[in-house]
Amino acid sequence: MANKKVVIVGGVAAGPKVAARVRRVLPNAEITIIERSKIISYAGCGMPLFIAGRVNKLDELVSTSYGAIRNEDFFLQEKGVIVLTGTEAVSINRDKKQVITKNLDTGAESELDYDKLVLATGSTPITPPIEGLNLKKVFRLYHPDDAVAIKEFIEKENVDAPVIIGSGLIGMESAEAFMGKMLFPTVVELRDQILPGILDPEMSATLKTKLEDMGMEFKLSHNVLKLEGDEEGNVIGVVTDQGTIDADMVIVAVGVRPNVELARQAGLDIGETGAIAVNEFMQTSDPDIYAAGDCVENVNIITGRKVYVPLASTANKQGRVVADNIAGKKVSFKGILGTSVLEVNGINIGRTGLSEQQARDLGYKVETAINASHDRTHYHPKHGQVILKIISDAETGRILGAQGIGQGDVIKRIDVLAAAITFKATLEDFFNIDLGYAPPFSTPIDIAAHASNILRNKLEGLADSISAKELQEKLERGDDFVLLDVRTLQGYKSRHIEDKRVQLVPLHELRNRLDEIPKDKEIVTICAMGTRSYEALRTLKGAGFNNVKYLEAGFEGWPYDYD
Amino acid sequence: MANKKVVIVGGVAAGPKVAARVRRVLPNAEITIIERSKIISYAGCGMPLFIAGRVNKLDELVSTSYGAIRNEDFFLQEKGVIVLTGTEAVSINRDKKQVITKNLDTGAESELDYDKLVLATGSTPITPPIEGLNLKKVFRLYHPDDAVAIKEFIEKENVDAPVIIGSGLIGMESAEAFMGKMLFPTVVELRDQILPGILDPEMSATLKTKLEDMGMEFKLSHNVLKLEGDEEGNVIGVVTDQGTIDADMVIVAVGVRPNVELARQAGLDIGETGAIAVNEFMQTSDPDIYAAGDCVENVNIITGRKVYVPLASTANKQGRVVADNIAGKKVSFKGILGTSVLEVNGINIGRTGLSEQQARDLGYKVETAINASHDRTHYHPKHGQVILKIISDAETGRILGAQGIGQGDVIKRIDVLAAAITFKATLEDFFNIDLGYAPPFSTPIDIAAHASNILRNKLEGLADSISAKELQEKLERGDDFVLLDVRTLQGYKSRHIEDKRVQLVPLHELRNRLDEIPKDKEIVTICAMGTRSYEALRTLKGAGFNNVKYLEAGFEGWPYDYD
Repeated sequence: MANKKVVIVGGVAAGPKVAARVRRVLPNAEITIIERSKIISYAGCGMPLFIAGRVNKLDELVSTSYGAIRNEDFFLQEKGVIVLTGTEAVSINRDKKQVITKNLDTGAESELDYDKLVLATGSTPITPPIEGLNLKKVFRLYHPDDAVAIKEFIEKENVDAPVIIGSGLIGMESAEAFMGKMLFPTVVELRDQILPGILDPEMSATLKTKLEDMGMEFKLSHNVLKLEGDEEGNVIGVVTDQGTIDADMVIVAVGVRPNVELARQAGLDIGETGAIAVNEFMQTSDPDIYAAGDCVENVNIITGRKVYVPLASTANKQGRVVADNIAGKKVSFKGILGTSVLEVNGINIGRTGLSEQQARDLGYKVETAINASHDRTHYHPKHGQVILKIISDAETGRILGAQGIGQGDVIKRIDVLAAAITFKATLEDFFNIDLGYAPPFSTPIDIAAHASNILRNKLEGLADSISAKELQEKLERGDDFVLLDVRTLQGYKSRHIEDKRVQLVPLHELRNRLDEIPKDKEIVTICAMGTRSYEALRTLKGAGFNNVKYLEAGFEGWPYDYD
Repeated sequence: MANKKVVIVGGVAAGPKVAARVRRVLPNAEITIIERSKIISYAGCGMPLFIAGRVNKLDELVSTSYGAIRNEDFFLQEKGVIVLTGTEAVSINRDKKQVITKNLDTGAESELDYDKLVLATGSTPITPPIEGLNLKKVFRLYHPDDAVAIKEFIEKENVDAPVIIGSGLIGMESAEAFMGKMLFPTVVELRDQILPGILDPEMSATLKTKLEDMGMEFKLSHNVLKLEGDEEGNVIGVVTDQGTIDADMVIVAVGVRPNVELARQAGLDIGETGAIAVNEFMQTSDPDIYAAGDCVENVNIITGRKVYVPLASTANKQGRVVADNIAGKKVSFKGILGTSVLEVNGINIGRTGLSEQQARDLGYKVETAINASHDRTHYHPKHGQVILKIISDAETGRILGAQGIGQGDVIKRIDVLAAAITFKATLEDFFNIDLGYAPPFSTPIDIAAHASNILRNKLEGLADSISAKELQEKLERGDDFVLLDVRTLQGYKSRHIEDKRVQLVPLHELRNRLDEIPKDKEIVTICAMGTRSYEALRTLKGAGFNNVKYLEAGFEGWPYDYD
């Protein structure tokens, strides 16, 4: 039997992973990667670090962990894989099992035979339908060339008013890069929150407040109409439906779309999300053609529905699965949870599973809890704050999703919750996981288990709560109620809500001062993080107060103004 | 109905947790905690940090996260809980449902009625049967008073030769405290490895090498016979079966035993491990008497067997379960995985589930893999090394246990693996978990999933490997084989094994230099972390070399000398 010919279109993430794994499982396969660009196998996610100067050389983003540069020669020598850069896959002849390629330097076309073809064609930044995108000083952050251009520009010019259009993952990672350079970007977002699709509104609002405190600015619900330039063709403003925002450079980051033209032209099925449709073995509608990475759609393992969530982690996993299937193993890619994590100026942000709205839309009876706490023992010098939200199905107690933000270790909890959600854990199951405890790492009951317990308390009727948004609405509406602040006088003085409905009774005095609190009024308890206000709620309930709620996550989760 | 009387014996971890939770679920219960000592609800695990000066005041170990000191007044005012410190529970009269208490200051005895009694009597350091324990400058690290004494001693005296007897959790945490003070302890251990019961031998050996590089000394397989003193009664040496070790202070940390005297005297069942036997609801053999924390035995959820693993995390969880059951809910404590984590001088150490030997003893057909890698993208400035071992059942692919060491983020992976093991995940299940990826947090395929994949490769016959110990034995035995180092010349020069059987062929030259490698000999490939040596193995196998193995975890996991 002749050696199997494997042709891979795309040399960034999924493609090289397929090639490397096929080589290890099929030593004699003839493997060829076709890549339009001149750079292959680069860590696109590292570009913000490069711009911020935390990665010194672009080479580090195309190096192995042992320092070898992943170029054509590396793939040939170490992997026995031929890489054709500067080469475009023009079309596929499925009958002849050939890819027609074009050398972008010479224009010469040729045919490449395949037994198995892999489409790892990736994605392309979406170009919004506005004028001015061709002005100078307007960038996108997609390819390493973009990163080099942005970095050179920032370091050469005296940038003062950078504007980012879009507050999704790439927009916020661009913000991270600017902050690393001590530049304070303005982020313009069409939706009414930052990181839509990643964070629920109240988590997003709290994050926004934290980033504003660090100097960033956000223009939410702003529809960008065009970019304005000066006589020299330099961008000077972002024109929105609510006025013009001054800009001396702009990054456009309004999302990506899958590159499906080659697949579509070849008659392969395109899914409902607009990405290439694949089965669990990562085969397209032609069983000899696989697809993986940013060009394919995925299945959300909770809902069973198709989603388009392009991520490098998924691309790499799929690459391995494709290779194993090419080698004749039957290996499935099970799907995704939509786990997304990022860091912006020292704040860790993550989510996994369903958002609250997604869960409601699917018909779940949803209950959620938000917990503000420390990621490790509060006496450990490295402790940091974490605000964690857990979304559950109230009927079964099953955990459906989780989100976290904070300077503490959010991501460990997101990963543990992702594992638990994968295995359909309930809140009680979650509490029973024997997580590691020592002061440098966690609290005796880990904050994630603690958040899960708060949610159990709510489901058991022990912890009637109110969200920051609901409280703010009550305050603005002029409702008659008592906002019982149970912190110490010192805590109260440091920050508090200035309102005549606020009454201060520190928790340690509460049991002796119950007669000062009106029994006939609605009471909302409030403290720094939710611990004391929950305790106060239980004390008041125990003393016969019936209409009591506590503010979840306390001032830590309060995104509004206070005195 | 009269208010429920809840009496809790023990005021450190489980006891106060029971009290706090009972108060929240039973507002009118009469709750009393009895505690021998004068300090209650302290974070014993924080004592090494206090000694090292990373926690400034002992008060921080008895404070809430919002700064309140957890003393008698705190429990009374905030929780409505009576705490009797300096009070001993002398005996239990189960017929009358009374605890007989003794005020340790006055000697006065009294009776305390209970409806539900909770034993949270904790544990006591084991006193080894040797002479000299009463010498001056001999300490244990168990109670905050011990921590204060050690800290004062270290800061006052010119300590030069501290010796720790025992290399279990408390011994190694004591070492962490010394290292924080720039003191380099000698640790004496009866067994032939450090952290027995926590780490498998090869992981332990690698850790030992790292700690030795930092200045610590270990005396393994040393049986301590007695402590030697001078005329003034100060300890000056630890006498072992292999000679005397100079010492100017000694910490004795040879484990703890559960405090079961009160339970035994009351006729309650003591389990096979020597700790108090409880059912899943944390009830002792008397259904009105619960027990929790360091005084009870637990069920290992993988084996179903009873184990004694006293940890603060377990104590706190059990406290909550006890309280809920006292309140009439039926809540189970499911058991433990034996997850243990600690930090020693910047090295993170963790384990969960079964050890390799435990798994073999249970009759599993065991396969393991060790992976040395970076905890996040190697180009991220904060990246650190992690060596991770996964233990699986070769027949089902189920993950049975995991261990990790390194300066990178070991603990996140241990927690995620603990979650996966709890839900009986296989290696393939584990690979499919959608863990968060971004450069500051992980690699596109997380190191834990990578370790899991290595193990899958081994099970599939793709990755014949050899352990460091096996390779060392081969070298010493004088076996005829080729040790093929596939790093660059530069890597080879930095450190390598000096032996005439070593042949250097960098991976990128291997495909062109195959004829230099003898086909009839056994070949072991080696590199820095195992990545290139595995690649070389696949290359050689593909070229018809049949007898090839690679060294798992490479030089990173090599605990022996090299040139």
